[in-house]
Amino acid sequence: MSRAFVFDGEDPALGGTRGFARAHRGLVELTEDPLFLTARDRSEARRVGIVSGGGSGHEPLHAGFLGRGMLDAVAPGRVFASPHNRQVYEASKAVARTDGVVHVVKNYTGDRINFGIAAERLRNDGIEVRRVLVDDDLATDSADTATGRRGTAATVVVEKLLGAAADQGRGLDELAALGAEVAAASRSLAVAARAQTSLQTGLYAFDLGPDDLEYGVGIHGERAARTVRRPPLGELLDRMLDRIFAALPTGPDDLLVLVNGLGGTTRLELYGIFDAVAARLEAGRAHVTASLVGTYVPALDMHGFSLTLTRLRDDWPELWAAPALTPAFPTKEALG
Amino acid sequence: MSRAFVFDGEDPALGGTRGFARAHRGLVELTEDPLFLTARDRSEARRVGIVSGGGSGHEPLHAGFLGRGMLDAVAPGRVFASPHNRQVYEASKAVARTDGVVHVVKNYTGDRINFGIAAERLRNDGIEVRRVLVDDDLATDSADTATGRRGTAATVVVEKLLGAAADQGRGLDELAALGAEVAAASRSLAVAARAQTSLQTGLYAFDLGPDDLEYGVGIHGERAARTVRRPPLGELLDRMLDRIFAALPTGPDDLLVLVNGLGGTTRLELYGIFDAVAARLEAGRAHVTASLVGTYVPALDMHGFSLTLTRLRDDWPELWAAPALTPAFPTKEALG
Repeated sequence: MSRAFVFDGEDPALGGTRGFARAHRGLVELTEDPLFLTARDRSEARRVGIVSGGGSGHEPLHAGFLGRGMLDAVAPGRVFASPHNRQVYEASKAVARTDGVVHVVKNYTGDRINFGIAAERLRNDGIEVRRVLVDDDLATDSADTATGRRGTAATVVVEKLLGAAADQGRGLDELAALGAEVAAASRSLAVAARAQTSLQTGLYAFDLGPDDLEYGVGIHGERAARTVRRPPLGELLDRMLDRIFAALPTGPDDLLVLVNGLGGTTRLELYGIFDAVAARLEAGRAHVTASLVGTYVPALDMHGFSLTLTRLRDDWPELWAAPALTPAFPTKEALG
Repeated sequence: MSRAFVFDGEDPALGGTRGFARAHRGLVELTEDPLFLTARDRSEARRVGIVSGGGSGHEPLHAGFLGRGMLDAVAPGRVFASPHNRQVYEASKAVARTDGVVHVVKNYTGDRINFGIAAERLRNDGIEVRRVLVDDDLATDSADTATGRRGTAATVVVEKLLGAAADQGRGLDELAALGAEVAAASRSLAVAARAQTSLQTGLYAFDLGPDDLEYGVGIHGERAARTVRRPPLGELLDRMLDRIFAALPTGPDDLLVLVNGLGGTTRLELYGIFDAVAARLEAGRAHVTASLVGTYVPALDMHGFSLTLTRLRDDWPELWAAPALTPAFPTKEALG
C-alpha cells in the first residue's frame, strides 16, 4: 500500500480541480458551487456547446480537454462518482449556444441518470440537448447486459472529433449523429497487472499475483471478468487485437490507435506497446492513420493499459488533426 | 510487485524509444546505431545546437522536449544508465551549428564522464562544446560531496529557457552562462511513498511501511538519506518549502514552481499539491510567476513528487512562455 498525497478531510477531487484551474488559469475558469469548469476561449463559430463530465480519478479526462477545439464545459464528480445533476445543469447553461448543447456521457448508470435529469431541466428552460453515449469497453460487452458496454478511453476520440466539428459550425443533430458514429466505430480493451490504490486508504482495490493479469479491466477498479496467467507481451497484444477486430464494425482500414496508460504505467512501456501494435497492424491488417500514446484516461494509479481502435471515415482524420488548445491534448504536430 | 509490459530479452529503452519516434514522426527522427534522436524542425536562427541525454526511465525527459524552442538532439541511455559517449558524439555532430553545441548534463558521474569524452572528440573535430551542469537536488547537497548535488526536475527548466534563448540566435558562451545561471537559481526536493518497480523483475527498489516517507529521494530509486514518519500533507509541504528556500540563492521573489510527479502519482494529487504550494507562496513569501504541474521527470512508476523552485530574473519569464513545439512540453497557453 502507499498512501496518497492528499489533504485529510478534503475531497481530493476538489483540491485537484482547484489546483488544475489555478495552473491553467489562462485556459479554464472554475466555478465552485456547484463545481464545474468552463473554457475561456471558445470558438465563435460554434452553434452548440460541448459538455462532458464524470467521476474524478481519470485525469486528464475530462477537464484537461477544455478549450478551443474540444470541450466547452466539464462537471467533475468525486473520485469514481458521477457529478450531481446540478453541476451538469449549470455547466451546460453556462456554455449553451444558439442551437443548445451536446452531452458527452460515458455509459455508467450514475452518469446516465444525472446527465438525464440535467437535460430535462435544460429542456424546461428551452435549451436543446442531445446526448452522445460512449460505450467502447469490450470487457463489459456481455457481462452486464442491463447497462451495456461501459465508456472508457474512446471518450477522448469522441471529444476531439466532436469539438473540431463543432468549431466548423455544425448543428445539434449533425453533431449528435457524428458522436454516435464515432462511438460506434470505436472499441477498447484493457488489462492490468496491479490495481489502483485508494486515495483515502492507500490500499489496492484488489490483489494480483506477480504472474496474474486482469484481462478486461474497467477504469474504476472493478475486477475483470477473468484473471489470466500473463502471456508474453507479443501474445497478449495479438489476443487483444483479435478481440477488438472481432468486435469492431466493418469499415475503412484507416485506424486511429490509442494506447492509453491506466495511471502507473511508464511511458517506456506505452511507447513500446505502441511500437509493437503499429508494426502488427501495418503488417497487413490495417493502416495506422492516426495515433495517441500516453496516460489520457487512467484509473488513478493502476498499472495497466488499454488499446482503443477507431475506424476513421469521411473527414475524421482532418477533425482529429485540427488544432486543439487545451491543457492536456497534444498539439497537432505532436500527434504524429 | 507488478511486472512491466515489456518484451522479454529486449531493452525496454530501445522499444520505447522506437515507439516514441513512430508516434511523433512529424517532430523527431530516430537513428538506431548509435541510438539518438533529433528534432526535425529546428529554428534557422540558432547558432548553437542544444543536446541532452541521460538514462531512460525519466520520460518525457529528455526526448519529449525535442523540437522547436527546446532540444535539437537527445542521446537516451538504458534505464537509469548513462548513454555511451558515441551516442552523445553522433547526436551532437548531427545538430551542431556554426557556433557549436551546448550539452545539458544532469550531475551524475556516468553522464559527466560520457558527455566529457564526447566533448573531447567533438573538439578534436573542430566543434566547440560548452557544458551546462544541472545540480538542483537538495537531498544530495552534503551526502555525496564528491559528486555534488544531482540533477533532477530543474533540467526541464534549464532546457526550456536555453532552447528559447538559442532560438534568439544567442552565442555559445552566452547560452552556457545562461544555463549555469538557471541551474544555480533552481533547487528541488523530492519525497516518495512507494519505490519504483523494476522493469525487469517487477520488484520494488525498496520497501516502505504505510506511514513511511522517503524524504529526499533521487530519481533512480536510491533510498533517501532519511525515512520519516509521514506528516500531514500541509506540514510536509511547509517543511519542503522551508528547506528549498533556505538553499535557494537570494534573488527576485518571482518564482517558477514545478510540481513534478515521480511516475505513479495521480494528477489529482499533483494539482492538489500545487494548489496548496501556490497558496502558501502567495500568502507573502513570493510570487508564483510561472508554473508547471505534471509528470515530467519521473523515476519509472515511483509514487512521490518533487518540488522545484526557480528564481526568475531578467527575461526568463518570456523565455519560459516562448512557444515550444515538442511532443511533451505544454503549449504556451497551457502554461497558465
